[in-house]
Amino acid sequence: MTEPPQNLPPDAARSEVPVAFEDPSYLAAVVDLLGAIAYGEMSAFERLAEDAKMSPTLADKAELARMASTEFSHFDGLRVRLAELGADPFEAMDPFQKPFDAFHARTAPSDWLEGLVKAYVGDGLAADFYREIAAFLDTGTRDLIIESLADAGQSRFVVDRVRGAIAEDPRLGGRLALWGRRLMGEALSQAQRVAAERDALSALLSGGVDRPGMDLAAIGLLVTRLTENHSKRMEALGLSA
Amino acid sequence: MTEPPQNLPPDAARSEVPVAFEDPSYLAAVVDLLGAIAYGEMSAFERLAEDAKMSPTLADKAELARMASTEFSHFDGLRVRLAELGADPFEAMDPFQKPFDAFHARTAPSDWLEGLVKAYVGDGLAADFYREIAAFLDTGTRDLIIESLADAGQSRFVVDRVRGAIAEDPRLGGRLALWGRRLMGEALSQAQRVAAERDALSALLSGGVDRPGMDLAAIGLLVTRLTENHSKRMEALGLSA
Repeated sequence: MTEPPQNLPPDAARSEVPVAFEDPSYLAAVVDLLGAIAYGEMSAFERLAEDAKMSPTLADKAELARMASTEFSHFDGLRVRLAELGADPFEAMDPFQKPFDAFHARTAPSDWLEGLVKAYVGDGLAADFYREIAAFLDTGTRDLIIESLADAGQSRFVVDRVRGAIAEDPRLGGRLALWGRRLMGEALSQAQRVAAERDALSALLSGGVDRPGMDLAAIGLLVTRLTENHSKRMEALGLSA
Repeated sequence: MTEPPQNLPPDAARSEVPVAFEDPSYLAAVVDLLGAIAYGEMSAFERLAEDAKMSPTLADKAELARMASTEFSHFDGLRVRLAELGADPFEAMDPFQKPFDAFHARTAPSDWLEGLVKAYVGDGLAADFYREIAAFLDTGTRDLIIESLADAGQSRFVVDRVRGAIAEDPRLGGRLALWGRRLMGEALSQAQRVAAERDALSALLSGGVDRPGMDLAAIGLLVTRLTENHSKRMEALGLSA
């Protein structure tokens, strides 16, 4: 038996699943996490497509449509991975629909610039947060998450447009700075709600017998890092955090 | 001078432009046509993203988001080609914004199924029409257009969902058949308006000294072919044309 099998079963992809997934609580936590990110990408697609309507020019609209399409392709990669892990991708996404939709309903931008700031600040914060969690995961899952969160050049576009608008009308700076702070507050509040409700995710963060986890002090440091990165993004936009 | 040039100018892509484009009226007609298709793809992106909101399930929403992203990638290919031809892609799209937006405003679907029928019937009709025009063009432009109009598997999804819905509630068939006829009527009326206003496009259809064109009889046959294909699509959906 040195020959590779000639007829792979239809679920052969599962053989790619690393040994860590033999622990059902680890599998449940990863499915939860990928479901959360996938729903986040899908709702980012929807939000960007919606914000595209407010674009001042066709070229700006095309940039937002590009960002939306990038979010969709990230979503699609996560959907495929969830199926490989034996999960129904849409069932995995379902628990996150309510908190994400609530976040978006509470932070509906009133104009094009607020939409850009939200895309930049919100996606940046989400990416930081998921990357922190990814550090506790198997390499394959970690790489997929990091790839899903990659910036497809949109940050530069947003920074250019927001700084340009403030240069033309400096009064915008105050309003957009307030907006950025509100986004951060709403995002942290929804994230706390999700963490409290999803036992598998919380268990992942607090570790296991053979896995390092985060104690309260470590979670405090995580929040500090998220806040610092948020301030840097606000600075990049020319806004006080 | 048998060596190829070592330092290509930044607009080297233009050297890929075939000799047909030395005729400025041909170039203008192709820019017009690609501008029309590009705006059509962009507005299809917007429409599908909007219709995705009405999806009964997350999985359906993901399918519409996939269709929207496919339209965006087609748009992006046309945008690149317009730039290679020395045109500003967004200026080329601009004259088509009004008639396309008018078409979409007059045919806003009132529910998810009307949105699916519109995506299928409308995109099919547009694809047929552009393919007919592409037959008069240089190979490169023709191939790009045909590629931009390729179905990315969405037809099968739409046919399945619409037939499934009618099987469950046969009364839907009458309403959706009326809807399909209205879409065809509105599309033809907008297409006539565009053809009448865009001299370069009309000149392309009527031919030139060294290019075959369409006489009135040929245009009559074109409309017959479009109508026949429309009827076939309606049949595929289980609707009477």
